[in-house]
Amino acid sequence: MTVGRSPELDELFRPESVAVIGASNAPGKVGTSLFRNILQAGFRGVAYPVNPHWKSVSGVRCYPTIADLPETPDLAIVIVPAAEVARVVEELGARGTRGVIVVSAGFREVGETGAALERAVVAAAERHAMSLVGPNCFGVINTDPTISLNATFSETLPPLGNIAFVSQSGALCAGILQYGLAERIGFSRFVSVGNRAGVDENDLLHALGADPATRVILLYVESLANGRRFLEAARAVTDRKPVLVIKSGRTPAGERAARSHTGSLAEAGRDQLFDSLFEQSGVLRADTLGDLFRTAKIFASGLVLDGPRLAILTNSGGPGIVAADAAIRNGLQLPLPSPATQRELAPRLPSIASLSNPLDMTADVGADQYRATLRTLLATPEVDGALVIATPTGTMTGATVADAILDAKSASPKAVVACLFGLTDLSHEVEFLEEHGVPAFTFPEEAVEGLGRLARYRSWRTRPATEVRTFPVDRAAAADALDRARAAGQGVLPEYAARSLLAAYGLAFPRVVPARTADEAVRAAGSIGFPVVLKVASPDISHKTDVGGVAVGLADPDAVRSAFERMDRAVRAAAPRARIEGYEVEAQVTGGKEVLVGLQRDPDFGPVIVFGMGGIYVEVLRDVAFRLAPLRTLSAQRMIRSIKMFPLLEGIRGEPPSDLAGLEEALERVSQLAVERPEIAELDLNPLIVRPAGQGVVAVDARVVLAPTSRSAP
Amino acid sequence: MTVGRSPELDELFRPESVAVIGASNAPGKVGTSLFRNILQAGFRGVAYPVNPHWKSVSGVRCYPTIADLPETPDLAIVIVPAAEVARVVEELGARGTRGVIVVSAGFREVGETGAALERAVVAAAERHAMSLVGPNCFGVINTDPTISLNATFSETLPPLGNIAFVSQSGALCAGILQYGLAERIGFSRFVSVGNRAGVDENDLLHALGADPATRVILLYVESLANGRRFLEAARAVTDRKPVLVIKSGRTPAGERAARSHTGSLAEAGRDQLFDSLFEQSGVLRADTLGDLFRTAKIFASGLVLDGPRLAILTNSGGPGIVAADAAIRNGLQLPLPSPATQRELAPRLPSIASLSNPLDMTADVGADQYRATLRTLLATPEVDGALVIATPTGTMTGATVADAILDAKSASPKAVVACLFGLTDLSHEVEFLEEHGVPAFTFPEEAVEGLGRLARYRSWRTRPATEVRTFPVDRAAAADALDRARAAGQGVLPEYAARSLLAAYGLAFPRVVPARTADEAVRAAGSIGFPVVLKVASPDISHKTDVGGVAVGLADPDAVRSAFERMDRAVRAAAPRARIEGYEVEAQVTGGKEVLVGLQRDPDFGPVIVFGMGGIYVEVLRDVAFRLAPLRTLSAQRMIRSIKMFPLLEGIRGEPPSDLAGLEEALERVSQLAVERPEIAELDLNPLIVRPAGQGVVAVDARVVLAPTSRSAP
Repeated sequence: MTVGRSPELDELFRPESVAVIGASNAPGKVGTSLFRNILQAGFRGVAYPVNPHWKSVSGVRCYPTIADLPETPDLAIVIVPAAEVARVVEELGARGTRGVIVVSAGFREVGETGAALERAVVAAAERHAMSLVGPNCFGVINTDPTISLNATFSETLPPLGNIAFVSQSGALCAGILQYGLAERIGFSRFVSVGNRAGVDENDLLHALGADPATRVILLYVESLANGRRFLEAARAVTDRKPVLVIKSGRTPAGERAARSHTGSLAEAGRDQLFDSLFEQSGVLRADTLGDLFRTAKIFASGLVLDGPRLAILTNSGGPGIVAADAAIRNGLQLPLPSPATQRELAPRLPSIASLSNPLDMTADVGADQYRATLRTLLATPEVDGALVIATPTGTMTGATVADAILDAKSASPKAVVACLFGLTDLSHEVEFLEEHGVPAFTFPEEAVEGLGRLARYRSWRTRPATEVRTFPVDRAAAADALDRARAAGQGVLPEYAARSLLAAYGLAFPRVVPARTADEAVRAAGSIGFPVVLKVASPDISHKTDVGGVAVGLADPDAVRSAFERMDRAVRAAAPRARIEGYEVEAQVTGGKEVLVGLQRDPDFGPVIVFGMGGIYVEVLRDVAFRLAPLRTLSAQRMIRSIKMFPLLEGIRGEPPSDLAGLEEALERVSQLAVERPEIAELDLNPLIVRPAGQGVVAVDARVVLAPTSRSAP
Repeated sequence: MTVGRSPELDELFRPESVAVIGASNAPGKVGTSLFRNILQAGFRGVAYPVNPHWKSVSGVRCYPTIADLPETPDLAIVIVPAAEVARVVEELGARGTRGVIVVSAGFREVGETGAALERAVVAAAERHAMSLVGPNCFGVINTDPTISLNATFSETLPPLGNIAFVSQSGALCAGILQYGLAERIGFSRFVSVGNRAGVDENDLLHALGADPATRVILLYVESLANGRRFLEAARAVTDRKPVLVIKSGRTPAGERAARSHTGSLAEAGRDQLFDSLFEQSGVLRADTLGDLFRTAKIFASGLVLDGPRLAILTNSGGPGIVAADAAIRNGLQLPLPSPATQRELAPRLPSIASLSNPLDMTADVGADQYRATLRTLLATPEVDGALVIATPTGTMTGATVADAILDAKSASPKAVVACLFGLTDLSHEVEFLEEHGVPAFTFPEEAVEGLGRLARYRSWRTRPATEVRTFPVDRAAAADALDRARAAGQGVLPEYAARSLLAAYGLAFPRVVPARTADEAVRAAGSIGFPVVLKVASPDISHKTDVGGVAVGLADPDAVRSAFERMDRAVRAAAPRARIEGYEVEAQVTGGKEVLVGLQRDPDFGPVIVFGMGGIYVEVLRDVAFRLAPLRTLSAQRMIRSIKMFPLLEGIRGEPPSDLAGLEEALERVSQLAVERPEIAELDLNPLIVRPAGQGVVAVDARVVLAPTSRSAP
């Protein structure tokens, strides 16, 4: 829930005055270190300690109560026992304070009593329209030198930089501040959201998206405050600046431990849903903390890769080959230098140099050859960026090669990344390169991964702009089908109702003719054309195959007749109490590929569209794609292409390609239905037959489940 | 090719005297740094410079020629122009030198002239049974303090340790020496094999496997000298010590670049073959150099994980959850503490601590609680090892928590790994912990990955011992089938011959009866029993389906008759010039799953057995497993279980499990055939039908191709 007063959250990030309620001098207390940290960081505004027990805190005049403060603080940091926090927040709000950071713990995380206290805190903050961070959080940092606010209990202030870090874990914040210091990772903002009773990652995405000091946003989340709002908040930011996320397990540890025994796929499936959400919102997901920070470093450098074509320049084969492997793995390309480029390069390189890609200049070259070769490579239109690898030889030092790299780079806007693998006095060179916009990595693979992310982000930013399409549909027919099912108290729509609902939304079904006798079935088949499918029609049988209630591939009248008789006996034997309304003869769809299209509603994500090849592909391989509705055309296209079995739809072994445009449209139509008809809890088209290109798609089986609240009792 | 004199390669690693042919004083020369490095490393034997141009080198008396040396050097390092190397090696050999390291370049790597020079060097070394390292290599290091040999051109001598590193790339060696120094990674041996004209990774696996100073062997290879020998050499070592490998792309850069455009799968398939080879030999493959060294660090510590059950002990939720995610991903388990263990833990922990796994003690705990809790966890039989995570709080320092960890660990043989995430003065604590057998990592995921590798290696070492089974087969019948095909000059065996060959090796086929007319076909079907398959028999048609030459599921006499007539017309129309020998009526195998079993011969790996679900699974998903023949029973079992679609064979959706024992045996029988019949170049059983458990497997289609050399002209 958001109670922020300004969308930029200036009351948190740019206060002119800060009060620390519960500031202290007692050693080891959070209130002690927190107030001291504010002073030590050189806060440019005024900091007031508030505590009735001290006359001064860290040498600064202390005020017994909030009422005693000589001015209204813009921001307050609260470190008092949980039971007192609501009162303090109320008092601050009444006085006019606009932002409050509750560091104190003992709220929702300790059970129901704490949760009640937390609700009271939220109520107080909402009453006064205050921005609330926490409770149970680590605090907030703004490194902007005109502010210099370290309102955390970490003594370490990170170096000034352009990375904003938002974390659901306070401990992670503390660790990362230390790590950032050691690795010279500069931050612009640091926010620990704690229990997220007020400000959450969505508010922060908005605020940091607008913050000119922030170039990259890093998120550590264990859950999302609201999956659907996240999609919107992230999409609004990722077109302008990259958002990187670590999403760790959201299950309690016990459930996780249980999972390790049962190997259940449910949670893995849910994690895939997060993958889809991030994909759909242009958020880059990191696999590990190490990955997160290496990727952040490369984005923080401001480098842009205008395409996937990379040149690898090296003085040694091995690391070049390692980098080349990693480049292919990361979706980059390694174009060969053109003959013209080779002619330009050759005169300055040893005759045994390999004028390929990687371009191995061999160990004999010095810094001058690095300079000249890199300059030539960057000047060609053949590559979008370069990785420069240098390993120790007698012919140069880290310093000379670093100079050469910067020289060559200065003439080009293209991305250059370095791997000074094992060169001595490394840390100084790395610092020098990085200060001048060339990120340097220990291992070639790490450098390449970073470049791969740049290329991927570039392709997100330059994706074709598509819209959510709205198709003309027969809303009256759809409403009628739903109303009648509701009126009959049916949670699962009868198949005819499901079909008319979906047909109203433009989904095609094969022609069906009802039949009560074998003779009728034969006549129906004749009018439809062979082959046909025969199915039992019963409101009491939902899995027809299980009771022998489906016969396919009936190629002639005899086959229809004998199938009818067999089925009638089988169904009555297997389901003696089912009401059998009759039988249905249906045109059999021949040719085409079976896929699954579904709609599920998630408490967090809302309507989710599901697509896969169905059957064992989904069950065994989990080869299924998710996207949040509404789907843009591009999302529909990408979702289809994201499954492993996609080549089957493109046509392998000389088969014709499937009707992908028709499939896209079907996904978009289901998406429209999902949005317009919230009372549908679940929908499955399984299978949907995708016929060869130009011939459209046909649903063969439809299952629609209504949300419990939208069903009325019979 | 190996010319080593002693299997332990003592002549390379433990020389008492070393001559450097081409030692120099000229600045920037390899001969200068190499001789100086030997002296600086404190070589415990005698080092002699040899060079007619200098009276002394680095202050040591220099000898004009090898003949002038006062004694025969055990080992010589050669740094003279390529054209002179063979003569020098000959001279050394004649004098009795047993080992020679050729650092000079200009051999095979520069083309045919160099290759000829290299052959001359090898010939000289072989004549005198010398161990030859290189040419075109970086040298050899032995850190053993009784030897202290740094025969490389790197000034850096790595810290003493128990990791041996063997590299096909010299530059990588140089880089890694520097990296190792910075990260305090200790090495026992360092060998750059260069062009591998003499000693290769297989010889070194043997020598280092027997070296008591080496606990872990690291390999960097771009290709294998001999895939089959590698399997044998590695298997002989991995039961005693772990072997970690980085296998980077073996294609020339140009081919790689081309691949990035075409997306060809051929190379990816070959890489999978390497995966299988490593799997089969117990070698752990690292994905990146970073991974390689992190894994090496944990093995170098000597820790053993006796099972996959890990306890995660932390003072903060976030890093604990990150670690838990990584644990599940790495195949580890996180058992919950038993009620008894919880009762033992609770009194010493804050009431809000989560007595789960991860066990989050919360930020209030100090080093004492780490000590007590870790001790209790390690003492229970519930876990096999522990990861201890500590993040900064006011309640402890890195030093106190490191002490506590070591205290608790000292009472237990179980593996303990630490992640001191962001604790201050980290490097000192890390060094302290690592010196005492507790590897420490920056990020939780890295620690967990290392533990996962320990568990995986443990499961390799404790794998069930199985043998290569030899089945009684009808060798006369097999020989007859092959001889007749050969005599007829047939590269591809006619299907009847392929079947009799495979039947001789115990593979089952459905019953087949030949038929020349529709009447004969109907009679044949009656005697076999319905349903049947009808196939055309022609030596000129290898893909029968393509010409309409296969009809399946013929359920009654009418169906057989009409299929016969249709097929006869279709085949004659589609393949008018094919000699049609008749038709075959075959029992149709019903039920069961279709798999593919194949044999391929690889120039490097020899006979390779292929297994997969066939069809699109192999084509689209590359869901296929490889193993080198001969197969042990365990390999057959694991290969079957390694494919993604394996659950299909176990039985999903209530289907019965397939006959896995029968499938294993079929793979082993094909393996036996592969070994006993080297003239078979290629074999495909596609499909092989695996029937429900107890009902065996039946091959439906067999294709056998003979090696060109074993075919005689007709």
